Amino acid sequence: MIRFLTSGESHGPELTGIIEGLPSGFIITKEYIDNFLQRRQKSLGSGGRMNIETDQVEISSGIINNLTTGGPITLKIKNNDWKNWKDKEIEPYVVPRPGHADLVGTAKYDAKDIRLILERSSARETAMRCAIGAIAAQILENFDIYVCGYVSGIGSLEYIHNGIDSIKDLQTKVTNSSVSCPDKEISKKMENEIKLARKKKDTLGGSITTIASGVPATLGSFVHWDRKLDANMARIFMSIQSVKAVEIGNGIEVSKNFGTEVQDQYFLDQKNIKKESNNLGGFEGGMTNGEEIVVKAYLKPISTTLTPIKSVNLSSKEETQTVYERSDTCAVPRAVPIFESAMAFEILKNLLIKTGGDSKKEITKNFENISKLHLDEFDLDNRIWNMKYETE
Amino acid sequence: MIRFLTSGESHGPELTGIIEGLPSGFIITKEYIDNFLQRRQKSLGSGGRMNIETDQVEISSGIINNLTTGGPITLKIKNNDWKNWKDKEIEPYVVPRPGHADLVGTAKYDAKDIRLILERSSARETAMRCAIGAIAAQILENFDIYVCGYVSGIGSLEYIHNGIDSIKDLQTKVTNSSVSCPDKEISKKMENEIKLARKKKDTLGGSITTIASGVPATLGSFVHWDRKLDANMARIFMSIQSVKAVEIGNGIEVSKNFGTEVQDQYFLDQKNIKKESNNLGGFEGGMTNGEEIVVKAYLKPISTTLTPIKSVNLSSKEETQTVYERSDTCAVPRAVPIFESAMAFEILKNLLIKTGGDSKKEITKNFENISKLHLDEFDLDNRIWNMKYETE
Amino acid sequence: MIRFLTSGESHGPELTGIIEGLPSGFIITKEYIDNFLQRRQKSLGSGGRMNIETDQVEISSGIINNLTTGGPITLKIKNNDWKNWKDKEIEPYVVPRPGHADLVGTAKYDAKDIRLILERSSARETAMRCAIGAIAAQILENFDIYVCGYVSGIGSLEYIHNGIDSIKDLQTKVTNSSVSCPDKEISKKMENEIKLARKKKDTLGGSITTIASGVPATLGSFVHWDRKLDANMARIFMSIQSVKAVEIGNGIEVSKNFGTEVQDQYFLDQKNIKKESNNLGGFEGGMTNGEEIVVKAYLKPISTTLTPIKSVNLSSKEETQTVYERSDTCAVPRAVPIFESAMAFEILKNLLIKTGGDSKKEITKNFENISKLHLDEFDLDNRIWNMKYETE
Amino acid sequence: MIRFLTSGESHGPELTGIIEGLPSGFIITKEYIDNFLQRRQKSLGSGGRMNIETDQVEISSGIINNLTTGGPITLKIKNNDWKNWKDKEIEPYVVPRPGHADLVGTAKYDAKDIRLILERSSARETAMRCAIGAIAAQILENFDIYVCGYVSGIGSLEYIHNGIDSIKDLQTKVTNSSVSCPDKEISKKMENEIKLARKKKDTLGGSITTIASGVPATLGSFVHWDRKLDANMARIFMSIQSVKAVEIGNGIEVSKNFGTEVQDQYFLDQKNIKKESNNLGGFEGGMTNGEEIVVKAYLKPISTTLTPIKSVNLSSKEETQTVYERSDTCAVPRAVPIFESAMAFEILKNLLIKTGGDSKKEITKNFENISKLHLDEFDLDNRIWNMKYETE
Repeated sequence: MIRFLTSGESHGPELTGIIEGLPSGFIITKEYIDNFLQRRQKSLGSGGRMNIETDQVEISSGIINNLTTGGPITLKIKNNDWKNWKDKEIEPYVVPRPGHADLVGTAKYDAKDIRLILERSSARETAMRCAIGAIAAQILENFDIYVCGYVSGIGSLEYIHNGIDSIKDLQTKVTNSSVSCPDKEISKKMENEIKLARKKKDTLGGSITTIASGVPATLGSFVHWDRKLDANMARIFMSIQSVKAVEIGNGIEVSKNFGTEVQDQYFLDQKNIKKESNNLGGFEGGMTNGEEIVVKAYLKPISTTLTPIKSVNLSSKEETQTVYERSDTCAVPRAVPIFESAMAFEILKNLLIKTGGDSKKEITKNFENISKLHLDEFDLDNRIWNMKYETE
Repeated sequence: MIRFLTSGESHGPELTGIIEGLPSGFIITKEYIDNFLQRRQKSLGSGGRMNIETDQVEISSGIINNLTTGGPITLKIKNNDWKNWKDKEIEPYVVPRPGHADLVGTAKYDAKDIRLILERSSARETAMRCAIGAIAAQILENFDIYVCGYVSGIGSLEYIHNGIDSIKDLQTKVTNSSVSCPDKEISKKMENEIKLARKKKDTLGGSITTIASGVPATLGSFVHWDRKLDANMARIFMSIQSVKAVEIGNGIEVSKNFGTEVQDQYFLDQKNIKKESNNLGGFEGGMTNGEEIVVKAYLKPISTTLTPIKSVNLSSKEETQTVYERSDTCAVPRAVPIFESAMAFEILKNLLIKTGGDSKKEITKNFENISKLHLDEFDLDNRIWNMKYETE
Repeated sequence: MIRFLTSGESHGPELTGIIEGLPSGFIITKEYIDNFLQRRQKSLGSGGRMNIETDQVEISSGIINNLTTGGPITLKIKNNDWKNWKDKEIEPYVVPRPGHADLVGTAKYDAKDIRLILERSSARETAMRCAIGAIAAQILENFDIYVCGYVSGIGSLEYIHNGIDSIKDLQTKVTNSSVSCPDKEISKKMENEIKLARKKKDTLGGSITTIASGVPATLGSFVHWDRKLDANMARIFMSIQSVKAVEIGNGIEVSKNFGTEVQDQYFLDQKNIKKESNNLGGFEGGMTNGEEIVVKAYLKPISTTLTPIKSVNLSSKEETQTVYERSDTCAVPRAVPIFESAMAFEILKNLLIKTGGDSKKEITKNFENISKLHLDEFDLDNRIWNMKYETE
Repeated sequence: MIRFLTSGESHGPELTGIIEGLPSGFIITKEYIDNFLQRRQKSLGSGGRMNIETDQVEISSGIINNLTTGGPITLKIKNNDWKNWKDKEIEPYVVPRPGHADLVGTAKYDAKDIRLILERSSARETAMRCAIGAIAAQILENFDIYVCGYVSGIGSLEYIHNGIDSIKDLQTKVTNSSVSCPDKEISKKMENEIKLARKKKDTLGGSITTIASGVPATLGSFVHWDRKLDANMARIFMSIQSVKAVEIGNGIEVSKNFGTEVQDQYFLDQKNIKKESNNLGGFEGGMTNGEEIVVKAYLKPISTTLTPIKSVNLSSKEETQTVYERSDTCAVPRAVPIFESAMAFEILKNLLIKTGGDSKKEITKNFENISKLHLDEFDLDNRIWNMKYETE
């Protein structure tokens, strides 16, 4: 069972992550991870903070000569800003920003300065989660599983993917868009919307859709609620800063239609059982069903705005207005790789539960034994039977 | 840390649940739990199955003379239908219903008959989860925490709560509506919509909004992703059968607006810090913030329809159509208590993490030490400082 | 990952257990489980309580027609004494017995009567753990893994197994001994020792050694402390009532010798790597090493003695003496199957982590991919190399 | 619930640890942690390796200006030897050492060189666990809880503590002994025994007893097996390299005596309930009982001996003898702080479960509400009663 812990403050020396339980023998490269980190630093819609970061991962255990050993992996991302902060005289931070962890966090941890809270609650933390998930993504490629996210909304602007691209083409289009949206025209509109928000000293949210292709069926399980993979996917997505809603497939649309209108009906393709549509976003009964996994996250606009809003001074104990803390106008375009990472991690975790095994060699063999929803696998006995239990 | 396991098949002798980690000294009554179970059996929109159930809980451990002992609690709900099934000759079930666990479950568990899968994946399982959460809800009442869910959508019909009712009034209105919607007029329309669907041999989904009042601030934490309570709430909601999207507060609406338009600004009420609005649905930084918790779940229409849809016969290995298995037209109205239960469970779990303690006496004392977001609690030192770490 | 919860009071209606995560397709019989329960009720050295029990398991979910379905399994063991207790007027229990949970449990759970504590802390609880482990044991037999425990000490009498029996022969000898000791002569002495203790109104402890044969190497892991299987075995053994020490292999003896005297040196048998001795009891680096697993538990004498000892009356608040509560003179002989169950459970848990898989069919295939410590498997590259990390 | 992950190879750049879930507001100093690390590097009986280490901790998150923030804490310990290794040409390591993880680890992780296994399985890993537990120990001092370990055996030499020292005096004596044994005379003998072993090119094991004073009663619980604190203590002790047996209190001796001879009888001291002896080592029913916690670990001699023993060359596939890898003659004296750390961690973990709370302020208040086993706390109702359940 893979698991991880992350740590680190935004202006501390570095972020750290330890991932435990990964199997041995898989190639992991710094380049692959850094690509995720760099996409997380896209500039449009970002504040000044981004120019300081230029994140790079360091690996100090568990991967030797680019191969996983089976031991815990340590990742570090230096905070380049640390050099400016370590001897800095820091002003007291006394006005909590509504919408952030500031107020409740200060109460919970009895903090003497609000900054002690925001140093950890800031989305800076997602850089490490992004790096961890990148490792998962790189391992998944060994099994022809690929993950790709894109921006499906900025403020009131929406983009609906037609689903005909291959995942590779989709990745290219997303990379080429300044706002991580596969459509050129809508990208332009989104860019303008973000510029408008910045001009208004305001912020914007939106939505991100993340897709995974090649995921085998039967990951997750319906037998106990906490093993449903769609539920665990919802958890990890909702845990990402700013996310306020998570939707599997076309979940919201589907909830408003009649049942017969939205069913993903089955047909045979050779002897493989396929679906005519994918409204369910790749899940049936909380398990992957062999279709593309599709999960959409809705992000609120960043709560920190150049336009001040009403708050309370916890020191003078009076009502006041917020003071600006450096922040993005719209974090949605650059958040895409965070969601890819989250999805890759959950898929890999569940894949490894399914395959067992400790080395690439063993897992590759066990992977072959997973169901492909091919007709020949099914072995119903087709008999009249009786549900007999050992009861009194 | 409270935890539970559930078990049982739809047509087996009974459902069972064990809850471990609950403190001692709390009154739990069968009546309170049975009320949740009965609301889960509301008849409008339900199929024939409901008339058979008339669920009642039995308690065989952990609650003696209506008081929790601190030991694990065992709940049982008899399947009244069992008497008809135990000697029955069961026909082979060979055509998986799209949208259910049937196909993937059969592949995953190498089942010899599809019924072995649906016996566990069916929403019948939620009866036990409902009972477990009812215990959590009854304990929460000791701390003036109340939970109430209502139907906010049936198919394309929507109801938006104005938020001026007390939670007690809301509960009454919901109970009085055949479709669990607080508004009489909309209830009527919803009823008709369900009747129409039944006539069309079709099914309907919708949405349920669940609210908790009185929850103290500071439950959950931002310091590590898996401790964010909104994320854990999303997980447990998404794990409920048919749910395809989960929204915290006005999350989706908020994602489409400018930041300044949707902020929940702070003000002082005496010396208590309050919010002018609750778009965030009671969470800041993954922690409860003292406001009402508001979470909405979107449910797909039930996948089993009287109108057959395309599938595959796993025995004859040919394309075919689904055969009807007894099911509801619209399960949304009666699903309300399941969501209340889920929310109550997560709140209690996080409350007990916060208070610690093993008995009502101890927890009641520790509860007093939780922050009330009152100005006097804050003790900022208001000094220029320096972020010093023990690094080289 | 298999997991379980147990529940139930000694004089409540029944004990219950739910096991979650077991794969499908394995035969489980009531007879197999009941055999464990009956061995746990051996009469020599037991008090009157045993005659009342005659435990039998009931199974109400997860096993249909003797086959696991993959869903959670529910086990129940009726307390036959319940019929005598349910309408009984129970005297207040106010004097805690030293050595039991009575005193601390009453303080922890603020109990109004000490009996509320002992109802759950009593070793009656192990009946359910015994049944759960029996399921694990029956599944392990599919992989030619067998577990057997025997009494290796009663009071000051010791028995040291010579290790030449097959595990089947050992099981037979243990079953034939009234004190579960494979040696006839020592069994007789142990019997007499127990009779003497009973006559003295006293109690006796001892030790139990549990062995597993056929366990493949590579279960557990050294890479993180909490995955070491010997450590987890120590935990589950120490959790059994009365156990005060746990020893792996000849651990204590080994700790007193020079290193070269106690090494389990390697040799080749065909191309299989074997050990000349098994002082380490089947573990190297916290992992199984292909040898027999050998774990010994030391049990204190039962704390409840017919001879009163000093205590305090929690009601009158005065020093006093204990009052006798029905109990065994020596529980060691009948505790043997509890340890077998515990060992079987931990082995199965770790085996399934290694194989992954959800059905007998899939697990059987994956099982073949586990290392057999055969020379041909090893694929060292035999090169000069360099430990390169991705650091600055 | 506090948790941690550790990572790092023996000759990699550094060891890393992340501890998550610690409350805010506690003073943690580098000096306190380094004291644990230095004691772990005592020289007598150690090989050349020790002179290279001179471990020091670095803290890069979660502790700012010596105060815990509530966020995850990152610890690092540089491997000073890394500078010699990073450009080194490393010879193939092809002969597994019996008694280590070498053979099984290589099979499990399909390693291309055995060194990849021993880099993580080596006891070098305990340096980080030692540092983590030191943090727990420093926090516990706020509640007047102190931990102290000492050597109770080297090879066949034994030391039995008389138990009259205060824990502070005991700490001093242990620190002053080159072999961490409180008795001067026996220390001298132990020293000589170790010198003899070194001369013989052999190794020695022994035993370590660890004590905690001031631990409140009611930590841990009997209600479910995996919450028994003695069981969890056994797990963490057994997970430490070389440990092959764990004993609570005088567990082994007790198992050989009659019940009445070894009972820890109760008496009143003012109105506090005390025990006349502490054979049970501070636990009743798996819970702390207010007495000193006493746990003894038995360590095998280090398996790496200068005298070669029989093994197999995994590359040439022939029987051969082991090649020496730098190692200690006797690691027991310097292992003491590792056990103190392990015990401190488990106590703190269970203490925080009991108190709940997120800041020193809140925890200090809740701590006062824990039972002191004082007569006035008990509130038995002293009535005839009836065990009523909600069953049919």
